[in-house]
Amino acid sequence: MSRIVGILGGMGPMSTVDLMRKVTEKTPVTKEQEHLRILVDSRPQIPDRTAAILGTGPSPAPMLQESARLLERWGAEIIAIPCNSAHAFLDDVREAVSIQVLDMLGLVGQELSRSFPEGSPVGLLATTGTGEARTYHGRIPDFKLLTPSPQDQEDRVMGAIYQVKLEDRVEEPRRKLLEAAASLDPAPVALIAGCTEVELALAGADSPVPVLLPMDLLASEIVAQAWDE
Amino acid sequence: MSRIVGILGGMGPMSTVDLMRKVTEKTPVTKEQEHLRILVDSRPQIPDRTAAILGTGPSPAPMLQESARLLERWGAEIIAIPCNSAHAFLDDVREAVSIQVLDMLGLVGQELSRSFPEGSPVGLLATTGTGEARTYHGRIPDFKLLTPSPQDQEDRVMGAIYQVKLEDRVEEPRRKLLEAAASLDPAPVALIAGCTEVELALAGADSPVPVLLPMDLLASEIVAQAWDE
Repeated sequence: MSRIVGILGGMGPMSTVDLMRKVTEKTPVTKEQEHLRILVDSRPQIPDRTAAILGTGPSPAPMLQESARLLERWGAEIIAIPCNSAHAFLDDVREAVSIQVLDMLGLVGQELSRSFPEGSPVGLLATTGTGEARTYHGRIPDFKLLTPSPQDQEDRVMGAIYQVKLEDRVEEPRRKLLEAAASLDPAPVALIAGCTEVELALAGADSPVPVLLPMDLLASEIVAQAWDE
Repeated sequence: MSRIVGILGGMGPMSTVDLMRKVTEKTPVTKEQEHLRILVDSRPQIPDRTAAILGTGPSPAPMLQESARLLERWGAEIIAIPCNSAHAFLDDVREAVSIQVLDMLGLVGQELSRSFPEGSPVGLLATTGTGEARTYHGRIPDFKLLTPSPQDQEDRVMGAIYQVKLEDRVEEPRRKLLEAAASLDPAPVALIAGCTEVELALAGADSPVPVLLPMDLLASEIVAQAWDE
């Protein structure tokens, strides 16, 4: 029997839409009724994760915990969070509920370990908050994570992210992100699209090295964990 | 202050994803936190609406009512149902809750009245259930609704719908749907993409007459009714 999935989302809303689309596409149904039931709290009012981590804004933890508890009460049996930066608060979410909360960043680490030797340099294209909080560094200790220079991070990476969030564009953001990646030293063996907006911009991009798509991995994990024929 | 939107969905799951995407795109935010909070019950287990209307399957009404009540209890202040066939059970849903439930089909009627003289022939490309239940006919009494021949309805329209639902394809379904429309007599002044899968297939299609997109109208109505700057 399939499990009911809860999505703690809205960070931003398009990332939640994209995760739901991916889950639907990856579920091998033979008729509509076999698809997973998904309960969603798409709550864009959750405070900016980057600002909170940098100490310039309120913590999103209380609202994340509240929405997680709502999802659990509504019947969700497993929770997914389609937002990389929010994973800095994963422990807070896990404390708030007794159901399983998937770790999207841990899935990226597992995928890297399957494909590359320990210690390889890997480029992290993520929000400044994710970089500063060392959210990925903490969960992927076995690889050398490289982040762009402060100037590139601000202009190219964050510039690209806010363009995807607010203008729903991908071409110019994609160019900016690949430029930021090209300046990394040493040259990385792979890139992590470590922000859902980066993932939207880089999916299908022509990159010289493999690009890991955390939300795509999360969608596959949801189907693997929750779907039952 | 914006209102919390509830989406009673999963019929099919891609239609729900598409409505959420459209609402997000149509909301004129200047920052992420201004987007609408959306609570979703994407519940593909809701029994097939067409089968119920044709008397060959169980009624979806009890599950529709249950999910509507859940959404209301969770805090939704307005409910939208991204499924044309489910509108045959709109009165049941409205009975179950005290909050506003939008009428996607009524929006189509309003749009037709704005653009065409009363009594004009309009092609309805929808599920057999929607046609048989005369769901659109009841809500749009001022126009002459034309449906394809039983053979076209079965092979081309329902064939196209199940291809979109199960195979996530749009090109072959689009061809089939436009062929079915071309056989209507008298020639319609407009087409109603009266099933969310038909809408996915026909959005942006090169049709000789205007195609009304109910879900697009619904998304605009959600923003108009729920969003506050």
